Amino acid sequence: MKPATLKDIAETLNISITTVSKALKDYPDVSKKTRKLVRETAVTLNYKPNAFAVNLRTKESKTIGLIIPEIVHHFFSSVIKGIISQAEKKGYLVIILQSNESYELEKKQLDLLLNKRVDGILISLANGTSDFKHLNDIIENGTPLVMFDKIAKLVNCSKVVIDDRKAAYIATQHLIDTGCKRVAHFRGPLLPQNSIDRFLGYKKALLDNGLEYDPSLVYTCACDDMSFNEGKVNAAKLLAEHKDVDGIFINTDMVAIGAITEFNKRGVKVPDDISIVGFSNWFMSSAITPSLTTIDQPGFKMGKMAFKQLYKELKANKNNKVIHPKIIELETSLVKRNSTK
Amino acid sequence: MKPATLKDIAETLNISITTVSKALKDYPDVSKKTRKLVRETAVTLNYKPNAFAVNLRTKESKTIGLIIPEIVHHFFSSVIKGIISQAEKKGYLVIILQSNESYELEKKQLDLLLNKRVDGILISLANGTSDFKHLNDIIENGTPLVMFDKIAKLVNCSKVVIDDRKAAYIATQHLIDTGCKRVAHFRGPLLPQNSIDRFLGYKKALLDNGLEYDPSLVYTCACDDMSFNEGKVNAAKLLAEHKDVDGIFINTDMVAIGAITEFNKRGVKVPDDISIVGFSNWFMSSAITPSLTTIDQPGFKMGKMAFKQLYKELKANKNNKVIHPKIIELETSLVKRNSTK
Repeated sequence: MKPATLKDIAETLNISITTVSKALKDYPDVSKKTRKLVRETAVTLNYKPNAFAVNLRTKESKTIGLIIPEIVHHFFSSVIKGIISQAEKKGYLVIILQSNESYELEKKQLDLLLNKRVDGILISLANGTSDFKHLNDIIENGTPLVMFDKIAKLVNCSKVVIDDRKAAYIATQHLIDTGCKRVAHFRGPLLPQNSIDRFLGYKKALLDNGLEYDPSLVYTCACDDMSFNEGKVNAAKLLAEHKDVDGIFINTDMVAIGAITEFNKRGVKVPDDISIVGFSNWFMSSAITPSLTTIDQPGFKMGKMAFKQLYKELKANKNNKVIHPKIIELETSLVKRNSTK
Repeated sequence: MKPATLKDIAETLNISITTVSKALKDYPDVSKKTRKLVRETAVTLNYKPNAFAVNLRTKESKTIGLIIPEIVHHFFSSVIKGIISQAEKKGYLVIILQSNESYELEKKQLDLLLNKRVDGILISLANGTSDFKHLNDIIENGTPLVMFDKIAKLVNCSKVVIDDRKAAYIATQHLIDTGCKRVAHFRGPLLPQNSIDRFLGYKKALLDNGLEYDPSLVYTCACDDMSFNEGKVNAAKLLAEHKDVDGIFINTDMVAIGAITEFNKRGVKVPDDISIVGFSNWFMSSAITPSLTTIDQPGFKMGKMAFKQLYKELKANKNNKVIHPKIIELETSLVKRNSTK
């Protein structure tokens, strides 16, 4: 049955459209009896309020936008799940766009969401993003914006993050504590803050323990779709260039699993010859042989918290209250498995 | 800068709001000079047309809804990526909801999307869905609906699928061709059509090759978040109950990888003792040891095709043309790796 209009209800009951409209809004100047009759007829005729007209009246779309670098990704898909589940609880729908790690696309998508009049925006930045004007524009425009995971420190909005530097420090310290003397690092791309912070945490742990920091032991990965292969390639390179390395802290589990696969293939024993610590605690980390010691990064929780913060700001915005940006830091933990001694 | 309104432009240029509105719509009864001036001022003042008002006028939201059983899933996240990339090309935004394999939630979410007046809906059904009224209601309501992967044969709408039965037949035939005489099957849940079809393909291959079909060799999995563990559990059960099995066709790669992990742990050699064929060609299938022979299931392409079909129906709908439902079947292929001889 096609949904009915106000007119259909009015004709059915032989009353005016205005009366129908008022009755549906429960206006007291329509009699209780008529209000009840109109409501019942609306159900019978499959009447649905026109969402566009409701939007125009309330100036709310009850929709938020989410821009994420990559959907086919164990960590980000967990974040999406966290966001959607929390948004649904509060009656919000989520439009998802994928930036493919491209700054240009990210900029275009933000514009698209603004034009769509979403109530607020959640974003994790593309690796290619180094200019932040498009983000500051959103804030000036008065649309609540919350960043998560891959953030820009210079943009004045709320952020949900982990302490990447501290987590990387703990990962590297664990390698040193279990006997590693020469620790390499497979790092992420140069721009993203989390990749920089993980590198700095690694470096600080070395220096604090009186170990030499050797830049030639740091290998850079794009950490994209191909990162499993990059793990393999960098592992092979490392074996050719540095026979004395006995530990590696790796930026993300996918790369670490690639490296373990390559070491297994070449007969290099993990952890006896080389110990490995990954980052993110993807469920596959416990499935491979040897299972991977890693940093647990709470993706689902991060998504939930990001929406919760955005929701607070949507409410503040509606009540014309000033938004005070907040930094929410989630706990991480070291999960010890069989890739370290 | 807050976006400007029509009124702001009118006041800036000292002309009427009606003239501004007409100029922006390029009406010829406004002079060329004024139209140009209004357009330039609109850009300078950061004017954005009110999406809600545009929606009311065009009766289009340029938004579609997508309901998917599970986001944190290698196959479905590829499908989502395909849908979003194609939708973006055509200027459509995608609202994503996750049914968590629940019929009740799926029903509620369809209603939510209808109330939101999305232009069309893409859906892959929850495992729990066995009644289809909520889907038929959408079609009666006149909203284009396209199903993919997990479909209902009895609902008269377009569908993008693979031939699960044929693919399962080919997978089982490969086990028989490489010497397996007693082939088990780890199947998916009882309701979903694709899980039924894969089982039927397995059974037919056995019978066509003169092998006995033994129901005790069929193990059922929920194939949800826990499916890696289910693979381990079923592998252990199989070893205890059927020492003579020399091949297994497994409903999905995740379960197959769990089974391989269990066999590796117990010293059962794959493929020398037991050969395994999986389903979906998840990228991890090539990473594990031994690498997994599997059926390649084109997730990204399925997403793209599903949107393309929906787009055709959105256009037909707009032009008041009748929609003729179409079944689009995508090709699969057997990827031979090291888990079979």
